[in-house]
Amino acid sequence: MQIVVVGSVALDTIETPWGSREDCLGGSAFYFAIGASYFAPVQLVAVAGTDYPKTARATLAERNVDLIGLEFADGETFRWGGRYHEDMNQRDTLFTHLNVFEHFHPKLPDNYCNADIVFLANIHPSLQLEVLEQVQGPQLVAMDTMNLWIDVAREDLERVISKVDLLFLNDQEAMQLTGRRMLLTAVQQLHEMGPKWVVVKKGEHGAILFGPDKQRFAVPAVLLHRVFDPTGAGDTFAGGFLGYLAKQGSLAPEHLREAMVYGTVLASFVTEQFSVDHLVGLKTEDIEARREELRDLTRWGKV
Amino acid sequence: MQIVVVGSVALDTIETPWGSREDCLGGSAFYFAIGASYFAPVQLVAVAGTDYPKTARATLAERNVDLIGLEFADGETFRWGGRYHEDMNQRDTLFTHLNVFEHFHPKLPDNYCNADIVFLANIHPSLQLEVLEQVQGPQLVAMDTMNLWIDVAREDLERVISKVDLLFLNDQEAMQLTGRRMLLTAVQQLHEMGPKWVVVKKGEHGAILFGPDKQRFAVPAVLLHRVFDPTGAGDTFAGGFLGYLAKQGSLAPEHLREAMVYGTVLASFVTEQFSVDHLVGLKTEDIEARREELRDLTRWGKV
Repeated sequence: MQIVVVGSVALDTIETPWGSREDCLGGSAFYFAIGASYFAPVQLVAVAGTDYPKTARATLAERNVDLIGLEFADGETFRWGGRYHEDMNQRDTLFTHLNVFEHFHPKLPDNYCNADIVFLANIHPSLQLEVLEQVQGPQLVAMDTMNLWIDVAREDLERVISKVDLLFLNDQEAMQLTGRRMLLTAVQQLHEMGPKWVVVKKGEHGAILFGPDKQRFAVPAVLLHRVFDPTGAGDTFAGGFLGYLAKQGSLAPEHLREAMVYGTVLASFVTEQFSVDHLVGLKTEDIEARREELRDLTRWGKV
Repeated sequence: MQIVVVGSVALDTIETPWGSREDCLGGSAFYFAIGASYFAPVQLVAVAGTDYPKTARATLAERNVDLIGLEFADGETFRWGGRYHEDMNQRDTLFTHLNVFEHFHPKLPDNYCNADIVFLANIHPSLQLEVLEQVQGPQLVAMDTMNLWIDVAREDLERVISKVDLLFLNDQEAMQLTGRRMLLTAVQQLHEMGPKWVVVKKGEHGAILFGPDKQRFAVPAVLLHRVFDPTGAGDTFAGGFLGYLAKQGSLAPEHLREAMVYGTVLASFVTEQFSVDHLVGLKTEDIEARREELRDLTRWGKV
């Protein structure tokens, strides 16, 4: 199956307790595309500035990401700065410079419009809506979002949510969006807003998939000695998840469970270094070895 | 296998967003004994005051808990008061009246000293040490503790930890005790302190078992619409865990995994009402139905 992702490519400045780095390659569509590329062909729609480094394009091209939909505009690339503390579950945003994103309207190349799977990565929900007007009968539309849009663009956000099949969000966002403290009650309300499937990401505590007929699947995070930089973990999770489904060409429940596992595995790699430093060079054996680790971490009883 | 538990019986005053109750039956040994009683015979060592209600003894006796080791002393029963907020992971201690516990020294009846499994429930570590001097060659010694003892009795606490096979604690305590933020690193340090097995309880995020040769097993919590009162969840978890092992008469790795599941199942019931209101009346079918729920929540791939 063919996947289209629409989101951001960015240059991130990251501070962590272990070090910092300026202008490293990031953005929701960037992380997603690299993650998904291990399983299926990805077409990327985003906007970059004239300062977007050639190495970024080369990184994506090496992973066979289709860049025809990557638009270049006069001005600077979107920049984001964040600081992480010892507790990696919390982060401060230091700055957000929209730059070329300010006037961006996603335009899908003709051959992207028939994609089987559409991923609306984290960007302004009004742009996510513009994408939905261009695609033609995808089999699965999934989306991600963030606390900022819940605060400042709630109406648009609810409109997108009502139109997608699958919503990725973290536990804090699920509570913020619904006002419910208990996850199960929050998710019930999210289903009522539209999505048949909801994936709640809980960082170091793993992720839970919720679907129709009380289908539920919880997977723990891979246990790591150090989380170096969690930026992009959620986007990479979505990449592994949807990439795996595209490869299988099926949305059967057992594939959705396996997709949760591959999302978890891919996300674990991205946190071990800045940017996609660790994510880009993976071999199939690396991915399968970590899948086996998760298998051993979760197996019990007789099936 | 025979289990001895040494800990507290208490009268708790609990405030939650859904209501409050005074002098309800509680205490670490009390919750543990009720939980474990579903699987194996339990012998309880604790001290109660002259005001300890007959209903408490009746509740334990109905669950076939051996009360020969329950001592009565002049004075009032241990009392604890706590308040929970919307976020059930945090609680304020309103008061702690040690009362008859102030001069308590556990004395194991002769026929308790040969127990196969000894559980040192949450009490002052110096009392836990006194128990260890009385038992004769148990197959498994497990313990629990709390933040208070890490603060005020660290030396005694480290001495007990160095002598047990299995340590139960929550994630915050693991970090407080080791000064390590990453769970895996904290647990490595806990193993170096003595225990071959460490069980980290993470409340709504489940629990993880760590053992020798990188044996690790993560189980999510049962998904609930409402956590009414989480008091005693950790003790009940330990009860289900050790009770199951006692019933199997084996500490084989696959039984330890299943023990994690039964601990999780029993703990889920106790949180649904004040005290042991929901825990005492369970049928085997109730327990097995919830085990199946966890099975469905966690199954994936081919085993």
